[in-house]
Amino acid sequence: MAKAKQRNMLIAQSGGPSSAINASITGAIARGMASTKIRNVLGAVNGMQGFLDRQIINISDQMKRSEDFDLLIHTPAHALGSSRYKIPKEGKEIYGKITEILKDYDIGYFFYNGGNDSMDTVNKLADFLKEAGEDIVAVGIPKTIDNDLELTDHCPGFGSAARYVATSVAELYLDTIVYPIPAVTIVEIMGRNAGWLTAAAALARDTGVPAPHLIYLPEVDFDEKAFVMEVRRLLEKESKILIAVSEGIHDADGNYLADTGAAEDMFGHKTLGGVATVLEEIIKKQVDVPKLKTRAIQFSTLQRAAAHCASTVDLEESYQCGYRAVEAAVNGKTDIMITIARISDVPYVVRYDEGKLELVANKEKKVPAAWITKAGTDVSEEMLTYLRPLVTGETTELLTGGLPRFFRFDLEKTVMPWEVK
Amino acid sequence: MAKAKQRNMLIAQSGGPSSAINASITGAIARGMASTKIRNVLGAVNGMQGFLDRQIINISDQMKRSEDFDLLIHTPAHALGSSRYKIPKEGKEIYGKITEILKDYDIGYFFYNGGNDSMDTVNKLADFLKEAGEDIVAVGIPKTIDNDLELTDHCPGFGSAARYVATSVAELYLDTIVYPIPAVTIVEIMGRNAGWLTAAAALARDTGVPAPHLIYLPEVDFDEKAFVMEVRRLLEKESKILIAVSEGIHDADGNYLADTGAAEDMFGHKTLGGVATVLEEIIKKQVDVPKLKTRAIQFSTLQRAAAHCASTVDLEESYQCGYRAVEAAVNGKTDIMITIARISDVPYVVRYDEGKLELVANKEKKVPAAWITKAGTDVSEEMLTYLRPLVTGETTELLTGGLPRFFRFDLEKTVMPWEVK
Repeated sequence: MAKAKQRNMLIAQSGGPSSAINASITGAIARGMASTKIRNVLGAVNGMQGFLDRQIINISDQMKRSEDFDLLIHTPAHALGSSRYKIPKEGKEIYGKITEILKDYDIGYFFYNGGNDSMDTVNKLADFLKEAGEDIVAVGIPKTIDNDLELTDHCPGFGSAARYVATSVAELYLDTIVYPIPAVTIVEIMGRNAGWLTAAAALARDTGVPAPHLIYLPEVDFDEKAFVMEVRRLLEKESKILIAVSEGIHDADGNYLADTGAAEDMFGHKTLGGVATVLEEIIKKQVDVPKLKTRAIQFSTLQRAAAHCASTVDLEESYQCGYRAVEAAVNGKTDIMITIARISDVPYVVRYDEGKLELVANKEKKVPAAWITKAGTDVSEEMLTYLRPLVTGETTELLTGGLPRFFRFDLEKTVMPWEVK
Repeated sequence: MAKAKQRNMLIAQSGGPSSAINASITGAIARGMASTKIRNVLGAVNGMQGFLDRQIINISDQMKRSEDFDLLIHTPAHALGSSRYKIPKEGKEIYGKITEILKDYDIGYFFYNGGNDSMDTVNKLADFLKEAGEDIVAVGIPKTIDNDLELTDHCPGFGSAARYVATSVAELYLDTIVYPIPAVTIVEIMGRNAGWLTAAAALARDTGVPAPHLIYLPEVDFDEKAFVMEVRRLLEKESKILIAVSEGIHDADGNYLADTGAAEDMFGHKTLGGVATVLEEIIKKQVDVPKLKTRAIQFSTLQRAAAHCASTVDLEESYQCGYRAVEAAVNGKTDIMITIARISDVPYVVRYDEGKLELVANKEKKVPAAWITKAGTDVSEEMLTYLRPLVTGETTELLTGGLPRFFRFDLEKTVMPWEVK
């Protein structure tokens, strides 16, 4: 059998961190290093932004020990760095530059690991390369704690964040009930337009606690009057209330409760944060219960970086998505994203599939109305059935003296094209 | 051998939560239920406050399965509820009432699980009982994430909080470095007057990350000018800085940076919180670095409730302190607190001991000056050697579907004196 023509593969990461994002590149790197069609596994630093600056490292050279792969799986947040750079729809110059770099480095397989904005980038690039007749494929590897990508049953990274949220909400609830005074705790959870992660707070009840008592998702218009009435009603029945709220809740006119008036981010999205404090103020002003203690808690970036609370199922699926992206690419597939299809809830069985990038790019899958209760303050049993398998399994990270260890690339050690030919 | 006269024992909890506090009562309960000298193990709900209201449950009746003990060890925050009630130094009426209830319930052994304020309560009670000639002993079981109790090498609850802080700081750092922009992250950690828990952030470096870059403890007067200069200097060398700061830092005049002007708590301590935001504002105003991203993060109550990140060593020692408190009490000891003496750092060996409550009550052990670097912005190698063994060991909580389960007492099911005679 003639030796297959070897090309290089390149992988890059984009968007916001997750604690499973590096499990995906580990799967891709492991498959790439084991493929007869691939010479070197390269990585671009800081996504497309670093790629355009030719910040390219040789991963094949940097991952030598099998332990490196284990450590990388459990290392949270883009090991290759991220960027919020979005390539324009048109623009001969930029696509020309990308193609030039790809050819310079003899890259036949391009992989981009990220969320909906990142999938838009791969989609545009794959389309351009096809039209230009270049023999280079581009495949997307999904990732987002927001769980808002279309076509896939759920997103790599989501299960770990969901496990962190459910576990922490349960623990926080136990913390809030120790004093014999009425208390309202408001926990703010990430998710600008999709309430999946906030919904995962409902799993806290599987631990036996009654929290959260109220769940507010961005899919439902927030009604301040109804909120105040609901809190008052609950406090008549029990003295400790925990509320899970998405950072992205808004009124019927679309005004974000947490709107800080701050500048928009690089993608033009509003920078949010602080909705828990807004709800706390509403309660302080409008709920007149003697000695009522209110506390606003933000999970902040811990919910997306807490590798110590990752879900084994999520890490395994994230790895598989990376692995299968390379598998698909070396078999000539392009302009696709690896997807997860759920075959069964119990026992939990999934199948990996491929979806067209144009059907994912820039789209957001929201929580279906049928999975939210009529009052708009809780999620349905269908949601819980959907969520449960995703948080399964203890993490298996390698600990030294009780603390985790991480794999870190030498991102300064960039290579020149001739070094990887 | 004549059967020993059986009396009841009562245990209660007080002060702030920790994720190991119930490991201590599990040790006490297990020893109590196995003692020939003890008839029933009783619990008071919400500490001395509930005790005075005769909110007393029969723990021996409520813990039937061996699994209950395993679950209770891993359940964070006072399973018996807490209170901030502090008994007065003098006051015939209140001590008379306490003695009456103790005798009504035939309690020969009284245990109080808490921090320095709680040890003051046991101390006063034990003294009163001795002077009154009552045949009732009172023993303290230490607990505080602040690690500020005198006589003991360290405090049950601290190691778990320290493990959470070190792990989360390392994970957060990885989250902060993904974008190619300069960033300062400020992490606020509990500890009003003692910086032990904030110092534990230094262990994050054991995972291989350079964070935290600066550590501010309440033992060192905070100097705003020096702080700004230090941040500027660091940002010239590297683009991502993580600062660990204690909620209790203050200027040379003793003014808390985070002083919100809020009311004092039930013990007369200032309610703090928000120092990270204060430092963030200082940086925004005085550090002029283009595109600098600042972020203030509060670990909030998660640092004291995150049982999922508990230290095995801490849980084991917390259990032992409870166990040994009962052991001491049934052997006639009173007015003491169980202490931990460190025999060796490596290998880590401890011995349990007893200390006089009057030497613990209302005192605060601070971080020694020798364990803080000269500049006042870091801790010494001695501190790291001290901290390392305390965070050791993976947690072993029982998971179902990836989520923890907890043991919860039925706190409503109080008993009358004749039911436990």
